[in-house]
Amino acid sequence: MKHVSMLKRALLLLALGLGVGATPVLAQEAPTPEYIMWTLNNLWIMLSGALVFIMHLGFATLESGLTQSKNTVNILFKNAMIICIGVLTYALIGFNLMYPGDFNGFLSFAAVPGFISIDPSDAEAVAASLTPAYNEGYTWYTDFFFQAMFAATAATIVSGAVAGRIKLSSFLVFATLFVSLSYPITGAWKWGGGWLDGLGFYDFAGSTLVHSVGGWGALVLAAMLGPRLGKYGKDGSVNVIPASNLPLAAIGVFLLWFGWFGFNGGSVLSADAATVSLVLVTTSMAAAAGGLTTGIVSWLRDTKPDLSMALNGILAGLVGITAGADQMMVWEAVVIGMVAGVLVYFSVIFVDQKLKIDDPVGAISVHLVCGIWGTLAVGIFGQLAGLPQLGYQLVGILAIGAFTVIFCLLVGFLVKATMGLRVDAHEETIGLDVGEHGMHAYPDFLISGNGVLESESEKVLAGA
Amino acid sequence: MKHVSMLKRALLLLALGLGVGATPVLAQEAPTPEYIMWTLNNLWIMLSGALVFIMHLGFATLESGLTQSKNTVNILFKNAMIICIGVLTYALIGFNLMYPGDFNGFLSFAAVPGFISIDPSDAEAVAASLTPAYNEGYTWYTDFFFQAMFAATAATIVSGAVAGRIKLSSFLVFATLFVSLSYPITGAWKWGGGWLDGLGFYDFAGSTLVHSVGGWGALVLAAMLGPRLGKYGKDGSVNVIPASNLPLAAIGVFLLWFGWFGFNGGSVLSADAATVSLVLVTTSMAAAAGGLTTGIVSWLRDTKPDLSMALNGILAGLVGITAGADQMMVWEAVVIGMVAGVLVYFSVIFVDQKLKIDDPVGAISVHLVCGIWGTLAVGIFGQLAGLPQLGYQLVGILAIGAFTVIFCLLVGFLVKATMGLRVDAHEETIGLDVGEHGMHAYPDFLISGNGVLESESEKVLAGA
Amino acid sequence: MKHVSMLKRALLLLALGLGVGATPVLAQEAPTPEYIMWTLNNLWIMLSGALVFIMHLGFATLESGLTQSKNTVNILFKNAMIICIGVLTYALIGFNLMYPGDFNGFLSFAAVPGFISIDPSDAEAVAASLTPAYNEGYTWYTDFFFQAMFAATAATIVSGAVAGRIKLSSFLVFATLFVSLSYPITGAWKWGGGWLDGLGFYDFAGSTLVHSVGGWGALVLAAMLGPRLGKYGKDGSVNVIPASNLPLAAIGVFLLWFGWFGFNGGSVLSADAATVSLVLVTTSMAAAAGGLTTGIVSWLRDTKPDLSMALNGILAGLVGITAGADQMMVWEAVVIGMVAGVLVYFSVIFVDQKLKIDDPVGAISVHLVCGIWGTLAVGIFGQLAGLPQLGYQLVGILAIGAFTVIFCLLVGFLVKATMGLRVDAHEETIGLDVGEHGMHAYPDFLISGNGVLESESEKVLAGA
Repeated sequence: MKHVSMLKRALLLLALGLGVGATPVLAQEAPTPEYIMWTLNNLWIMLSGALVFIMHLGFATLESGLTQSKNTVNILFKNAMIICIGVLTYALIGFNLMYPGDFNGFLSFAAVPGFISIDPSDAEAVAASLTPAYNEGYTWYTDFFFQAMFAATAATIVSGAVAGRIKLSSFLVFATLFVSLSYPITGAWKWGGGWLDGLGFYDFAGSTLVHSVGGWGALVLAAMLGPRLGKYGKDGSVNVIPASNLPLAAIGVFLLWFGWFGFNGGSVLSADAATVSLVLVTTSMAAAAGGLTTGIVSWLRDTKPDLSMALNGILAGLVGITAGADQMMVWEAVVIGMVAGVLVYFSVIFVDQKLKIDDPVGAISVHLVCGIWGTLAVGIFGQLAGLPQLGYQLVGILAIGAFTVIFCLLVGFLVKATMGLRVDAHEETIGLDVGEHGMHAYPDFLISGNGVLESESEKVLAGA
Repeated sequence: MKHVSMLKRALLLLALGLGVGATPVLAQEAPTPEYIMWTLNNLWIMLSGALVFIMHLGFATLESGLTQSKNTVNILFKNAMIICIGVLTYALIGFNLMYPGDFNGFLSFAAVPGFISIDPSDAEAVAASLTPAYNEGYTWYTDFFFQAMFAATAATIVSGAVAGRIKLSSFLVFATLFVSLSYPITGAWKWGGGWLDGLGFYDFAGSTLVHSVGGWGALVLAAMLGPRLGKYGKDGSVNVIPASNLPLAAIGVFLLWFGWFGFNGGSVLSADAATVSLVLVTTSMAAAAGGLTTGIVSWLRDTKPDLSMALNGILAGLVGITAGADQMMVWEAVVIGMVAGVLVYFSVIFVDQKLKIDDPVGAISVHLVCGIWGTLAVGIFGQLAGLPQLGYQLVGILAIGAFTVIFCLLVGFLVKATMGLRVDAHEETIGLDVGEHGMHAYPDFLISGNGVLESESEKVLAGA
Repeated sequence: MKHVSMLKRALLLLALGLGVGATPVLAQEAPTPEYIMWTLNNLWIMLSGALVFIMHLGFATLESGLTQSKNTVNILFKNAMIICIGVLTYALIGFNLMYPGDFNGFLSFAAVPGFISIDPSDAEAVAASLTPAYNEGYTWYTDFFFQAMFAATAATIVSGAVAGRIKLSSFLVFATLFVSLSYPITGAWKWGGGWLDGLGFYDFAGSTLVHSVGGWGALVLAAMLGPRLGKYGKDGSVNVIPASNLPLAAIGVFLLWFGWFGFNGGSVLSADAATVSLVLVTTSMAAAAGGLTTGIVSWLRDTKPDLSMALNGILAGLVGITAGADQMMVWEAVVIGMVAGVLVYFSVIFVDQKLKIDDPVGAISVHLVCGIWGTLAVGIFGQLAGLPQLGYQLVGILAIGAFTVIFCLLVGFLVKATMGLRVDAHEETIGLDVGEHGMHAYPDFLISGNGVLESESEKVLAGA
């Protein structure tokens, strides 16, 4: 950060063989317009990557806000580990799996760990990763940074649906395989230039490739795990297990909306302001329409408007617009958001009361149902609308859904058979914070409702 | 987000008639310097819009932190809905009302819903909204995105002052009218090129146009509603109703400062780095001076320094510098912040103890009093200082204040007469979370002080 | 924020003598490539400054999450004041002290308050601070904005280690001197072009200049203060004083990671995308490797994985990569992060159980130990690796460490002798929130464990 270090760095880069071409700004000659646009593209995509990163904090706070206080440490630990594991495995495997054709064969799945093993003394290899010569108008590092932040979101989506009962070790094994294999394989079908891309399937920023992939994982695992104890009575009654900290949940949704500006805006993959600004507007309009619609529907049907529902309505709108954020006019974004807002409301109730799948945060309804809706919407609204496109969208939804469900079932059963999926009833009752981590999230606070459990959990803590 | 989608999109855009001119980066020929600067302007203003968005999270956490835990869900719901309603109505009405002369008459109030109804098959209309041809050096979408995020803040300011006693439905009706009519009409007087602009009134980023407008709304509604039960004794005593969650309040103030970099920095309306960097520095210096000054004043007068006061001091400095952030030297920003820091301290006490208007978060003192101060400061300090300018500033403050007060009184009385403004005493006592939403913000936590109310609120919940 | 204000501003600037050269975009002629790159550099560094600002919220939430609820208000107040004091004193003294050679002698320590006293009527002086002529490719204001946000972090690091027992006034006096004298003096040795820079010492973004400087301050003050009451038994037992709010702590670590994109990314001091994108990737990989490693080590050694440890592992990785973030290949960043993750785990235990220095948040282990590690790593890995470099790094670590320790001891003893360093036992027992501020952080919530203290603190509050 020293002020005069630029010249020194320029000399260093020269010594490395990167030359003037790599960093023309350092040379005497004026930067070319191409170089400047390349800088701008990088800047926007890097900033978008940072915004997508903050979505992980959004998910962490949303999930710990919407679940019980006795499972909060566990959720925070899971979400902190997912971003760590996600970034590391994406460098090791995922990035290569998902974009096999990039980098002129420099990296391939066979050459694992590829990305992390550039020989620093191989000036040409280093230069290839840094110069404007990289084929997409930004550096390889910028590309990885943005894509890696994306990748980890798919696994995080699952985390909320299985909260309060999944074994920590089992979840982390599942999440690692999910983010390093399942997500990049189906991702490659479209974004890696694979067969779905060839077919004409369109998914701008991942209603299907990210959100419904995460949603399918949430559905399979939540179904395999069964509901939390006490969620469904033997008489068929459905009990509400209340969210423990609604300000945390609200912080989560606002941060997710904020991060979505990078998730969708950065998916333009350039600083092309015409498209990026359109995308920011359609994203915001759909979020707003989703939140307002769910708020109104909840008000009309429940007599009192439910905050968690309205917050999920905002997320529903965001997931819904994601597949076609660059294709829609403003009014179409509003309609897509409104439909998503209605869908999420009824889906949450349907999953909870009819399917009796216990999804503490509504991940299945938000990410799977609205992810499917958003993907179909590309065939109904916007510049690509038409029956053939609707067909392609359906094929993409089904193919990616089928692969993801099979993958999750296989891994789920394998993990269940070897490690077990679910904590025992005693641990679930005292909470996973004490059971898996030996700590309380809010030890200074008196927690209601579980006076007996408190003393029980103290015994476990003392023995730990 | 597919890597090779850029070419495809270029073809699509070409098919739409947007042509090479709209997105020269996609063409073979080099981007022009004008195109690049246009891209940079868009980028900065879009990022600023995202930063202004996060201020809504700042307000939500600040307000829920500074009020009672029994009203937290209600505050979060209000603030989530305001941003949704604000964005939607600004597209429908506000944007056209506020900037009537833009877009060569393409949009007008008569042509509602204008902005959201561009015919996607009308290539020329679409192109007009996306190309660099748009008159201000950025796209129409960028402009809307930034302005819409601004608009909703005015209504959010009111929310804090009326917390704990206003009917949810009545507030939402008021906020909708406020953000879609009152704010853009007075905004048009200056930023829309109206009569105050012609006069010479100066308000860089909205000390008056945003903050004191919100502050007047806060004053009128808080006065109409009357104080929370128990706030003022029959013997004239003034009771403190303590803030329930000070970490939330601190999160709010830090996020507001962060978002203010976009609020003021983006108001340069270009990426002109000379002005933007000056603005970021004046903004930070005023915030720091405000916070430190209020902290010291509170320490000297209350013997112990009050955290809420110091946090409001930071906001006071921010509001104070907003009208002239691009006009001040650094030392002037410090002085403006210090004066704001003193003003907010004594104003909070005056409003609370002399006027006996119950403003749970200090919105009137922060946004109205310091908004007026900041607007006047443009006539006292900086490049525009002088008696005539001070006169213009006074005219602007009075005119916008008069309009806003009359508007709020009219709407307030109309809502009061038809829907009622205030919840009943029983609901207020058990809290608006249970009363308006049928839920608790922190159901796992034992809440002190209202053991009786707890069981009462449980009864309401059970019946809900 | 008025749409047509650009022309008016252009005229204003012209009147001020800034001329067309300063803001070519406003003129008819096309902006030059040099001007555009200058704009881009400014933009990136300003955004980075905003990201570094948000680290102060990260520290505030991390520290208040990891300590007891009875000291929360005190921590929030300290951290809010540090950023205010830091920004103001950096303008007054620190900036000049740290970069004495800049600005062609326009500013110097002798000319205090220099930076804040530009005569607004001296068009040349104003212009010099705004034009592209400023020697480093960005404006003086941009430079100050970024550097001032940096400066305050060093003092904030100390804050966590002394939580729960230091007198507020004494801490603020210490922090003011630390941020305005100690930090900029040692900073000048390297980043100001001083003797360590001449020697060949390398510290890209401050593993030593910021983090270990803060860490030395934390060590000296925590040792001088002694442990919190009850932390160490007379029988030599070590007691755990649990963190009161782990979601707050997690919010803190995620925000710090987010802000570190600006801390390291902005330290490139230009928008040079090749280096910035590399830095964002090395930063993320080290953070991920640190978090995962500490999580695993904690799991293996404590049988249950500790959330606070894992969170500190992320910070350890971030501190570790900071000195050489622009010098490392991806795999080197991973190794540096892993080593940092192991180091922080054992260091926390060593400091707590062997040295018996009470550091409630682990600041010494995260910032001092990993700061030293990161600085040494520049001599072991990356483009500068080699025995001579390792020697320079060692010299830098020792020299800056010695100065900082001596400074802190001097100021510490001076403050102790005059004002006293530590609150009395009664105040410490009831908590610094009541003792120093007369308020509770969570007054609505029932706090466990200190039923007796509660009533005691109520007495103090009533008397206050």
